[in-house]
Amino acid sequence: MIERPRGTRDLEPETMVTRRWLENKLREKAESFGYSEVLTPTFEHTDLFLEKSGPSIVEEIYSFEDKGGREIALRPEFTASVMRMFSQELREEPKPLKLYYFGSAFRYERPQSGRYREFWHFGTELIGAGTPEADAENIALAYTSIEETGLKDLKMRISHLQILEDYLENRGISREERKEIYHMIDKEGDNRELLDEFDLDDEFLSLLNASFEDISEFTGESEAYQYLEKLVDYLTRYGITEEDFEIDLRTVRGLDYYTGIVFEIEAEKLGAEKQICGGGDYNLGEIFDVDISSKGFAIGFDRLHLALQREDKLPEKDREGCYIIPIGEESLDYAYEVLTELRKAKVKCDLDLKERSVGKALGYADKADFNYSILIGEDEVENENISLKDMKTGDQQQVDRDMIVEEVKSNG
Amino acid sequence: MIERPRGTRDLEPETMVTRRWLENKLREKAESFGYSEVLTPTFEHTDLFLEKSGPSIVEEIYSFEDKGGREIALRPEFTASVMRMFSQELREEPKPLKLYYFGSAFRYERPQSGRYREFWHFGTELIGAGTPEADAENIALAYTSIEETGLKDLKMRISHLQILEDYLENRGISREERKEIYHMIDKEGDNRELLDEFDLDDEFLSLLNASFEDISEFTGESEAYQYLEKLVDYLTRYGITEEDFEIDLRTVRGLDYYTGIVFEIEAEKLGAEKQICGGGDYNLGEIFDVDISSKGFAIGFDRLHLALQREDKLPEKDREGCYIIPIGEESLDYAYEVLTELRKAKVKCDLDLKERSVGKALGYADKADFNYSILIGEDEVENENISLKDMKTGDQQQVDRDMIVEEVKSNG
Repeated sequence: MIERPRGTRDLEPETMVTRRWLENKLREKAESFGYSEVLTPTFEHTDLFLEKSGPSIVEEIYSFEDKGGREIALRPEFTASVMRMFSQELREEPKPLKLYYFGSAFRYERPQSGRYREFWHFGTELIGAGTPEADAENIALAYTSIEETGLKDLKMRISHLQILEDYLENRGISREERKEIYHMIDKEGDNRELLDEFDLDDEFLSLLNASFEDISEFTGESEAYQYLEKLVDYLTRYGITEEDFEIDLRTVRGLDYYTGIVFEIEAEKLGAEKQICGGGDYNLGEIFDVDISSKGFAIGFDRLHLALQREDKLPEKDREGCYIIPIGEESLDYAYEVLTELRKAKVKCDLDLKERSVGKALGYADKADFNYSILIGEDEVENENISLKDMKTGDQQQVDRDMIVEEVKSNG
Repeated sequence: MIERPRGTRDLEPETMVTRRWLENKLREKAESFGYSEVLTPTFEHTDLFLEKSGPSIVEEIYSFEDKGGREIALRPEFTASVMRMFSQELREEPKPLKLYYFGSAFRYERPQSGRYREFWHFGTELIGAGTPEADAENIALAYTSIEETGLKDLKMRISHLQILEDYLENRGISREERKEIYHMIDKEGDNRELLDEFDLDDEFLSLLNASFEDISEFTGESEAYQYLEKLVDYLTRYGITEEDFEIDLRTVRGLDYYTGIVFEIEAEKLGAEKQICGGGDYNLGEIFDVDISSKGFAIGFDRLHLALQREDKLPEKDREGCYIIPIGEESLDYAYEVLTELRKAKVKCDLDLKERSVGKALGYADKADFNYSILIGEDEVENENISLKDMKTGDQQQVDRDMIVEEVKSNG
């Protein structure tokens, strides 16, 4: 029998309900911040991702040749696509332009807990504002979006890449070597190998591990340090204080196109795959021939959902809706009238489609988690009422025709 | 510069707003009918689609070999995937099982008006109910969903495949030939070539063109004809009468797995690509080793959206939200408080992130279609109020701090 491809998932009804709940929370929040939704194609020319993320990404992406001989790849993330869309179609929009997206992305990697070959991202791009205010807005949206889902055990780290850049540049370390250093820090944190390999002394490790206040001892009041101070000041205006984050220069994101402020949010409950959000300040001007400062972030939607599940913060599934059981051919017209009325009132409602006995139909209503069964026989037709059976308590009562919607809605 | 792949689209903010509006309408309706959402992977093993739709589909699908040497294909539609999911994971659920889905699918074909290489389907599967009641429910959901979007110019055709099957079988025409005949009817309608090629006489064309009442003259009160009569009877219980559809035996759907009732809905405004919904009764038991009668339909979401646009039935975009313009450093704290308060009340709200002059900020608020600008300077901080400027009329008034949310919401 044909099974689903390795590393992918089927999302069942119960999971979809809580995923839609989470998606709507993130969506509402982004819209309250003035962001508008966009959607780009699921695949792009492979070159787009190569230019943004470098040739090594080829090993991880689903790339193939289409029937017209084009090199095509399933998107591994959205920023390249959204910026491609911006440069192709939205250049003339008033700035800053605030865009958000929600959809799936693809990576060919070994499947493991919390890592799938198809996964969902909810993310944003704030295009055309190069100020600390804009960085604060970007970080505040990411942080408060996640916080307002109810997740408790989260941790945010913020850095300004220019601080390490300045420090290393002053010591004559080339751009290529600096990139290597950031990749090492991103992968393994700080370690002595770094020092040996790049001729750095202990001071560099001290800087990497310095608290916000101590950083200035190494850098003085540099431009980057002052920018970071302003950012922290603006964050307090969003109710985000140093209890919510730490400044940590080891946060380097490991992607070449970040230029200034970067940040990461982790959910401790998730173990090795605990990063649920990452973002910062970037400039993809070289690729798209438009020099424009942008900020953005992406939330790992599946991981956030998993973290909420582990913290027991997802809304619980409850019995819902009505199952109508007509008894005898003569009650059918009336039963369909009640069905249509309830559905119009947006009550989830169903009617036995299998011509089952009353007992079997009640059994189905119970197993399918309906809140009520509605029995309609000769008496009910004559008296213009229904028999309403509460499937949790088993209580049954007669309800007049014109009170059905009200009665059913009053009990969830 | 890298452009988006041929035959795909970027969906801009204005389009996404009306698409989400439409999606939510369809979603609410399906849920009121007792359907639950599922989602399957974007790609499957290529074999799945070959087994369902036959080898000729290979020419139209995006298929490729993944890095592990598996033959993979982007889904060309959802039914195969949902039934694969059912057979793999949902077999034991109480029947009937009512599932719906929304997402994109892919076909490699020549792009033209209304046809894209990535397109969206909203659809359903009603698994495990083989009655005319179930067919009526399936058709009623499709038809009323589309009708309630506001689309006026639509046309539904319904048929029962077994009627032609019986007729042709009785004349000794083999299963293979019958399939060919259906494909011809599906592609070209009725024509004399049909008669010549398969040795049929004029009576067959008369049957193909017969009205509902006249069909029985050819078939007598056959089982299939009686089933169709029952279906029509049940449809009236959903308020769907013969003014809304016609019985038309030329509706054959051209797909091998349909077995009984089939239907199509067209939006006349769309010209050649006018079919916006198709579905019916099918059995994929052979593929999935589970003999179960199912009904379903798929709505071509992009075409329905286009048809609504042509009929001017999409909700209009209006000015929305507030743009806050702080005047001077001293008003910043107060401005951010107002910002946070409005966002908490789910009012779309933004604050100048570019440190612009008041004149430029007002210009941005206008171009970005905000409903209001909120000016906050020294006076407003002192008096604990704001200056609220209506961007449509240009009127400006002072509003007390504790009345802001109410005032802003009262005017949309």
